[in-house]
Amino acid sequence: MPVLLTPDQAFSLSDLVLQINKAGLDCKLINNTSEPMPRLRGLGSLLSAGPEEISFLSNPRLQASLASTQAAAVILTPEVFEQLDFQPNFVPVLCSQPYLMYALLAQRFDQVRMDQLPQGIHPTAVIDPSAVIAEGVSIGAFCVIEPGVQIARGSRLGAHCVVGANSSLGADCLLHARVTLYHGVHIGARAILHSGVVLGADGFGFAPDPKHQGAWAKIAQIGQVQIGDDVEIGANTTIDRGALDNTIIGNGVKLDNQIMIGHNVQVGDHTAMAACVGIAGSTRIGKRCTIAGAAMLAGHLELVDDVHVSGGTAITSSINQAGRYTGVYPFAAHTDWQKNAAVLSQLSPLRRRLRSLERQQRDEK
Amino acid sequence: MPVLLTPDQAFSLSDLVLQINKAGLDCKLINNTSEPMPRLRGLGSLLSAGPEEISFLSNPRLQASLASTQAAAVILTPEVFEQLDFQPNFVPVLCSQPYLMYALLAQRFDQVRMDQLPQGIHPTAVIDPSAVIAEGVSIGAFCVIEPGVQIARGSRLGAHCVVGANSSLGADCLLHARVTLYHGVHIGARAILHSGVVLGADGFGFAPDPKHQGAWAKIAQIGQVQIGDDVEIGANTTIDRGALDNTIIGNGVKLDNQIMIGHNVQVGDHTAMAACVGIAGSTRIGKRCTIAGAAMLAGHLELVDDVHVSGGTAITSSINQAGRYTGVYPFAAHTDWQKNAAVLSQLSPLRRRLRSLERQQRDEK
Amino acid sequence: MPVLLTPDQAFSLSDLVLQINKAGLDCKLINNTSEPMPRLRGLGSLLSAGPEEISFLSNPRLQASLASTQAAAVILTPEVFEQLDFQPNFVPVLCSQPYLMYALLAQRFDQVRMDQLPQGIHPTAVIDPSAVIAEGVSIGAFCVIEPGVQIARGSRLGAHCVVGANSSLGADCLLHARVTLYHGVHIGARAILHSGVVLGADGFGFAPDPKHQGAWAKIAQIGQVQIGDDVEIGANTTIDRGALDNTIIGNGVKLDNQIMIGHNVQVGDHTAMAACVGIAGSTRIGKRCTIAGAAMLAGHLELVDDVHVSGGTAITSSINQAGRYTGVYPFAAHTDWQKNAAVLSQLSPLRRRLRSLERQQRDEK
Repeated sequence: MPVLLTPDQAFSLSDLVLQINKAGLDCKLINNTSEPMPRLRGLGSLLSAGPEEISFLSNPRLQASLASTQAAAVILTPEVFEQLDFQPNFVPVLCSQPYLMYALLAQRFDQVRMDQLPQGIHPTAVIDPSAVIAEGVSIGAFCVIEPGVQIARGSRLGAHCVVGANSSLGADCLLHARVTLYHGVHIGARAILHSGVVLGADGFGFAPDPKHQGAWAKIAQIGQVQIGDDVEIGANTTIDRGALDNTIIGNGVKLDNQIMIGHNVQVGDHTAMAACVGIAGSTRIGKRCTIAGAAMLAGHLELVDDVHVSGGTAITSSINQAGRYTGVYPFAAHTDWQKNAAVLSQLSPLRRRLRSLERQQRDEK
Repeated sequence: MPVLLTPDQAFSLSDLVLQINKAGLDCKLINNTSEPMPRLRGLGSLLSAGPEEISFLSNPRLQASLASTQAAAVILTPEVFEQLDFQPNFVPVLCSQPYLMYALLAQRFDQVRMDQLPQGIHPTAVIDPSAVIAEGVSIGAFCVIEPGVQIARGSRLGAHCVVGANSSLGADCLLHARVTLYHGVHIGARAILHSGVVLGADGFGFAPDPKHQGAWAKIAQIGQVQIGDDVEIGANTTIDRGALDNTIIGNGVKLDNQIMIGHNVQVGDHTAMAACVGIAGSTRIGKRCTIAGAAMLAGHLELVDDVHVSGGTAITSSINQAGRYTGVYPFAAHTDWQKNAAVLSQLSPLRRRLRSLERQQRDEK
Repeated sequence: MPVLLTPDQAFSLSDLVLQINKAGLDCKLINNTSEPMPRLRGLGSLLSAGPEEISFLSNPRLQASLASTQAAAVILTPEVFEQLDFQPNFVPVLCSQPYLMYALLAQRFDQVRMDQLPQGIHPTAVIDPSAVIAEGVSIGAFCVIEPGVQIARGSRLGAHCVVGANSSLGADCLLHARVTLYHGVHIGARAILHSGVVLGADGFGFAPDPKHQGAWAKIAQIGQVQIGDDVEIGANTTIDRGALDNTIIGNGVKLDNQIMIGHNVQVGDHTAMAACVGIAGSTRIGKRCTIAGAAMLAGHLELVDDVHVSGGTAITSSINQAGRYTGVYPFAAHTDWQKNAAVLSQLSPLRRRLRSLERQQRDEK
C-alpha cells in the first residue's frame, strides 16, 4: 500500500473530483451519506485500501471486493454502479474510465511527496565553477558536477549523482540518488533516471593486440551518448558511449531496470524495453518496438519499426517486418524436459530417418 | 585464501574448540605433539592453508590432500582419522560434522573483522533531524538519511548508503557500502544488503498515452517495498516498489547478485534465488522455492511452495505443483547445433509427415 | 561523434602523423592543397566527421562515403587512394593499416581529455591514516579509503569510490566514479574499472539451517578476490569474493558490463566476456576463451583454453575441447514458434513412433 499523506496533506474528495474533471475526465460524486465527504490520505487497491483511502474498480474480476472494501471512496463505472445489489459503505465516484482516473490520482498523490523533495543546492555538492546550472535546479548531497556541465531549469538531482565533464541535462529532469553520467552524455528534457544508472561508460571495444599474441588492445571509446526527451531509465541500467559515433536513444523511450545497451546502438522513439534486456553493439531498433524481459539482441542488427520481441528470446538476425517474434524453450517438469531435450541433439538424423522412410514408402507404391 | 588475522588477534586452537563445543558440536582435539598448541590466524582449504591456519576435510575426494597440507590443524571425522596410514603433520580435530564446524569457524574468523568495522555515526553523514536512529547504530561516511527514517538498534550502514524518506530498518541490519533505498522501503531485522542494491525504484508501469499516439504515459508508482527478517540481497540487485500495493519479500529469503524483482511481486519465506534471475511484475512465488541462476519468470504468475526452477529456464505460465522444472536448450559444438537447430523450425511439419506415414502404414495393414 | 577538443588543444595533422610513425606505423601525408595543413579537433566516422576532424576508411563498404565526407583529412590505404576517381576534398593520409592508425589516434585524442582529469587527492576524500597511497595517486571527491589499503603510483580514482580494508591496487589503475571494492580485493597494474563495479561482495553460500527447518544458514565468505594485470571490468559488473579460497581473474581479462562472476571462479589470462554473462560459483575458465553476451555457465565446471561460447548459450557441463559451442533457440515469427514449440514437448514420443515405423518397415522386408 502507498505511504499515507499526513492528515494535514489530505485531499478533500470533492476537490480531487474537481481537479480530475479539469484534467478532462467526467466524474461524478454520489453523495450517499449524511456524513461530511471524506478527506483522503491515500489511494489503494480495493483489497488493501483503508478508511482514509480512495480506491477504484477497473478489473471486472475484482467486482466482488466492492462489498468488503474498507475504502472511503471507490471509482467505478456508472454501469457497475447501477448493478450494485447492496448499499455501498463507500462514497461512489462514477467515471467511465476508472483506470485513467486512477492513473491521474496516483500522479496527484505522488506529487505531494515530490513537492517535499529538498530544493536548492546541497552545501556538500562539489560543482565545478565552469558548470552552467540554471535557476531552480536542485542538486542533492555529495553530488559531483564536473567542468563544462549544463543543467537546464527545473531539473532535480538526488544525492550522490555524478555528472561528467561537458555532459548536459535538459529541463525538468529527475535523477534519483546515485546516477552516474560519464563525460559527454547529453540528455533531453523530462528524463527520469533511476538509482544505479550508468550512462557513457566505455563500449566493449578491443582488437587483437599486434604486440602481444593472444592479448587484447583497447580501442579508446570517444563517441558520446545522446538521449532524447521524455526518456525513463530504470535502476542499474547501463548505456555505453559510442566508439566513435554516438549511442542514440530516441524520444519517449522507456527502459526498465538492469538493461544493457552497447556502444553505437540506436533505439527509435517510443520503444519500450522490460528488465534484463541486452542489446549488443551497433544494433539499430526502430520506433514503437517492445522488447520483453530478458530478451537479447546480437550486435550489428536492424529491427524495423513496430517489432515486438517476446521475453527471453535471442534475436540473432535482422528483422525486416513488423510483428511479434519469439524463441523460447518451453519449460516442463524436469524429467520430461530431460527426455525431450535428449532428442534435440538428434533432430537432424531424425529428419534424415523420416525422409528415408518416406522414400521407401514412395518406392513401394 | 582468507585475510589472515594479525598475530595479536590469533585464536588459540584450544579456545576455538571450546567455543565450538559450546555452540553445540562435540569436537575433540588430539594432542599429538610436544609443541605448544598452535595459534591460528586463518581458516583455509586443505590445499591453500598455511602453517598458521586451520583447515577441514568434508569432501572425501580431497582426502589425499591430508598428507601434504601445510595447515596447522585439520578438522576431520573420527572415521577418517582412524584410517590415516601416516603420522599427520597437523593437529587433528575430530568432529562428526566437519562442514558444520567449518561454517561456525568461518563465522568466528569473519567476526574478528566485523568487530573492527567503524562504530558510531561518521561526521560526514547527512541525517535529517526527523530521522529516528536507535542507540548503537553505525552510519558510514557520506550516508544520506532522509526525513522520517527509522533505524533500529545494532544496524550498521557502510559508506555512501542512502535511506529514502519514511523508510525503516529493523535491528541488526548490515548495509554494505552504497546501498540505495528509495522512500517507503521497510526492512525487517538482520538483513544483509550488498553494495549497489537498489530497493524501491519505480516499477515499470506505463499505459498508452491517450494524448500522444504511440507514446507511453507513466503510471506513478506509489506502493512500497516490504522485506521480512533475515533476508540477504546480493550486489546490484534491484527490487521495485509496488504500483499501488507493496512488493513483498518474505522472511529468510536469500537473493544473489544482479537479480531483478518487478513491482508487486511476492516472494514466500525462505525462497532462494541465484544470480541474474528476473521476476516480472505481480508474480507470486511460494515458500522454500529455489530459482537457479539466470532463470526468468514472466509476470502475473503463481508458483506454489517448493517449486525448483533450473538455471536459465523461462517460466511462462503458473506452476501448481511442487517439483523441479526446466527448459534449457542443450548446448553442443556449434556446427552440430546448427544442423539440429535448423530442424527446429520444421518440427510441426515433421510431425505431420510422421503422422501421414503412420496412417499409410495402418491403411496398408 | 566525439567531444571536440578546444581550438587550443587541436593537433596539427603533421604532428599527428609524426607521432603515429614513431609508434611504428608508416603513414604518409599527401599535401594536395595550397592551404595550410588542417588543425584537428576530433576523430570521426566518414559520415559524421566535420571539417575540423580526421576520419578513416577501414571497412571497404564505406568507400562511397569518401566523395561526400566533410572530414578535413582521411586515412586510407595507398591502394584505395590510387583508385580514387575524383579530386578529394580532404587531405589523404596513406597508411597500410587504417584501422590500427584509427585506434592509435583515438587513444591520442582521448588522452587529451584524460590529462585534464583532476589530479591529487580531493579534500573531501576520507582516507584512513594507515592506508599507503603512493606519490602521484589521484583520489576523487567523496572517496572512502579504509584501513590497510595500498594504492600504487599513478592510479586514479574517480569520485565516490570505496576501497575496503586491506585491499590493494597496482600501478596506473583507472577507477571511474563509484567503484566499490570490499575488503581483501587485490588488483594488478593498469586495471580499468567502470562505474558501478562491485568486487568482493559475499558469494552466495548457504546451507540448510540445522536449527530451523526449511531456513538457510549463511556460510561466512572469508576468501578474497585477486585480479591480474591489464584487466578491464565494465559498468555494474560484480565479482564475488571466494568462500575460502580466492576468486581469481587472470591477466589481460576483459569483462563487459553487467557480468556476474560467482565465488571461487577462476578466469584464465586474456579471456574476454561480453555483457550480461553469468558464471556460477567454482567454475574454471581457461585462457583466451570468449564468452559472448548473455551466456550463462553453471557452477563447478571446467572449460579448457580457447573455448568460444556463443551468445545466449547455457553451458551446463564441462568442456574439454577447444572450439565453439552454442545452444540457442532460434527465434521465429510468434505463431510459427508456437506451432513448432508445441512439438518440442513430444520429441521423445515422436522418436519412439519413428522407431516403431522403422521396425515395421524392416519387418515387412
